[in-house]
Amino acid sequence: MTRVSDLDTPAVTIDLDVVEANIKRAQDILDAQGIANRPHIKTHKIPALAKKQIAAGAVGITCQKLGEVEVFADAGAADDILLTYNIIGESKTERLAALIKRLKRLAVVLDNEVVARGLSDAAKRYGVDIRFLIECDTGYGRNGVQSPQAALDLAQATMKMPGLQFEGLMTFPTAKPETRQYLERALQLLKGAGIPVPVVSGGGSPSLKSVADFPFLTEYRAGTYIYNDVMQVTAGAATWDDCALRVRATVVSCPTQDRVIFDAGSKVMTYEQYYAKGFGRIVEYPDAEVTGFSEEHGNADFSKSAKKPQIGEVVSIIPNHCCVVTNMMDEVYGIRGDRVEEVFPVAARGKVR
Amino acid sequence: MTRVSDLDTPAVTIDLDVVEANIKRAQDILDAQGIANRPHIKTHKIPALAKKQIAAGAVGITCQKLGEVEVFADAGAADDILLTYNIIGESKTERLAALIKRLKRLAVVLDNEVVARGLSDAAKRYGVDIRFLIECDTGYGRNGVQSPQAALDLAQATMKMPGLQFEGLMTFPTAKPETRQYLERALQLLKGAGIPVPVVSGGGSPSLKSVADFPFLTEYRAGTYIYNDVMQVTAGAATWDDCALRVRATVVSCPTQDRVIFDAGSKVMTYEQYYAKGFGRIVEYPDAEVTGFSEEHGNADFSKSAKKPQIGEVVSIIPNHCCVVTNMMDEVYGIRGDRVEEVFPVAARGKVR
Repeated sequence: MTRVSDLDTPAVTIDLDVVEANIKRAQDILDAQGIANRPHIKTHKIPALAKKQIAAGAVGITCQKLGEVEVFADAGAADDILLTYNIIGESKTERLAALIKRLKRLAVVLDNEVVARGLSDAAKRYGVDIRFLIECDTGYGRNGVQSPQAALDLAQATMKMPGLQFEGLMTFPTAKPETRQYLERALQLLKGAGIPVPVVSGGGSPSLKSVADFPFLTEYRAGTYIYNDVMQVTAGAATWDDCALRVRATVVSCPTQDRVIFDAGSKVMTYEQYYAKGFGRIVEYPDAEVTGFSEEHGNADFSKSAKKPQIGEVVSIIPNHCCVVTNMMDEVYGIRGDRVEEVFPVAARGKVR
Repeated sequence: MTRVSDLDTPAVTIDLDVVEANIKRAQDILDAQGIANRPHIKTHKIPALAKKQIAAGAVGITCQKLGEVEVFADAGAADDILLTYNIIGESKTERLAALIKRLKRLAVVLDNEVVARGLSDAAKRYGVDIRFLIECDTGYGRNGVQSPQAALDLAQATMKMPGLQFEGLMTFPTAKPETRQYLERALQLLKGAGIPVPVVSGGGSPSLKSVADFPFLTEYRAGTYIYNDVMQVTAGAATWDDCALRVRATVVSCPTQDRVIFDAGSKVMTYEQYYAKGFGRIVEYPDAEVTGFSEEHGNADFSKSAKKPQIGEVVSIIPNHCCVVTNMMDEVYGIRGDRVEEVFPVAARGKVR
C-alpha cells in the first residue's frame, strides 16, 4: 500500500471523499431546480471521474476540444456529449462526423455563419446531421453572438443550412443580471419567430449556487466544482475543506529567513491568477504568500508567517485554478486519508486539437 | 510530403534554418570568449536538438530536473550534464546515483547544508562521488547563498562531507554589475582559503550578448536562444526573424469588429508575461494585441490593426516565453520554408520530478 507521504514531489493528489461530496452537492443543487447536470470534464480530464458524475445523476458531459471527446468516447465514459467549441476545418469536421456516428448524441456550439457553413458541408459529405447550440456572449467578452437579435438572426440563417439541427442557446458564464436579461430576450424573440428551443445551457462553477435565478436553463455545465480551488473559495462558492486537489511540493531551499523555495514551479502550478492574491494557498502555512514561479521553482514569502518550514519538508498547495494544473500532469493520485487508492492517468491531458 | 499549411491547429512549428543559425551565433559568441557552452535543454526538451548543439561545439548540456537528465541520457544526447537543482529525498538521490554511474560526468548544484548532507549520505549508500557547484543568488531572488562569504562558508562545510566534490560556483542569471561584483569577491575569498574553483557557471539567454563582461566564467548556460521569443526580442537579444518557434492558430470567431478569438489558449500559449505587453505577437498582424486566454481560446484586440483577419484564417504567434510553450506540446514540427521536415516528440515534456 502506498501512503500519501511516500509520493515523490511534486505530485498532485485528489481527495476522493471530497470529490464525491462535491459531486453530490452540485447534483443536489441542480436536481432541486430540475436542471440537467452536464459537467465539464476539462477540470479532471479523467474518464473514471466522469463515470462517477454520471452515476450520481449527470445526463452527460461537456468537452472543449474534439480530442477530449475522443478520449471520453473511447473510454465509454459518456454517450451524450456537448462540445462547446466552434469546429472549423476539414480535419476537425471529419473527426466530428466520425464521433457523431459513434455516440448517442453529440452536439456542438457555434457563433458565426462561417463555422455553420463548414459544418453543413461536412454533414452532407459524411452523411450525418449535426446538432448545435448558438453561443451567446452575455457579458464575458469571449466567443458568442453579441445580442438577442443576433442570436435570432443566426438561428434563422443556420436553420436553412442542410444537415444542421438547431437545438438552442448556450452561454458562459451564467452571471446575473446580464445573462438573465440577454437570454430571456433571446428566448422571447425565438418564440415569436416560432422556433422551438429545447436546450438552454448555462455554465460556470462559481455561479452554480445562484442557478435558481435562471429558471429558463434546461442544463448546466460546471467543471471546477469537482475539485475546487482558490478561485472558487474567493468567489464564495467553496470552502478550503471542499478543495480536493492539492499539489504536494518539497521545500528545497530557504535562502533567507522569509524566502522559501519549493519544487513546484509554473510547469505544475501555472501562472493563472484570477482574483487571487498570490499564486496558491499553502495549506500548512496559510499566512505565507506564494509570490511567483520559475518553471521548476515556486517562491513563497513567509514574512507574515510566524511558523517557518524546514528544508526537506513537504507542503500542500491549493492552486488558484485547478483545471489548468490537471493539464500539466501525466497522472494524479486519488487518495483517501493518508492512503493512495488509485493512480489516475490524466487521459485527456494536452488534447488541444 | 506535409506542408506547413496542412498542419491542423493549434500546432507549434520550429524553423530549423533559424534554429541552426541561432545555435551557431551563440556558439560563436562563447567561442570568441573562450567560455564553454553548456546549453539548457529546458527550452526544447528534444534530444535531437541537443545533438545539434553539441555537434556545433557545446561541451554538454544543462538540465533542471532528474527526469530531463534521464530522457537525454537514454537518448545518448549528452554524456556531460549539469543538473542545476537542489536534489533532495531518497527517491531522487537514488535516481541521481544511478545516472552518475551511467554518464561520463553529471554534476549538481546546491545552496544549503541539508541538501549537501543528503547527497553525501547517498554518495556513501550508492558508492559514487557527487560533484557539485554552489548556487549563488547574485540578485535574482530565487535559490542561492546570499553572499560571497556564505558561498565560502558552504564550500568549506561541504568539502568536509564524504563523497562530495566541490567543483565551483553557479548563478542565474548573469546580470551586471551585481553578478560580477558578487562572483569576483567569492572567487577572491575561495582563492584566499586555498580552494580551487575549476568551474564558474553563468547563464541566461538575454545576457549572452554581454558575456565578455564576465571574464571569470568558465561555462555558460543559455536555453531560450535556440528558439527566441517576445522576451528575448524585448530584451534586445534577438530580432523577430531570429524567432524559430511559432504557434499556428486558427481564427474561430470574430464576435465584434475588433475582437478576434483563435484556437490557442493558455493550454498552448501559457500565461507568462515577463516584460511584454500582451501575451504574444501575431506575426501577420503586428498591430494587434493578444489580450488574454481561456484554456482553449486566445483573445486578441484588433482595434489598432487596420487589417483584420477572416474566420478560418491561420495566424502565427510568437509567444512571450518559448520554453513554457514547448512544455505544453506532445510534439512540435521542424520546418524548412513551407515544408514539414520532421515531427519531434517533446521527449522531456512534463518531467517535473
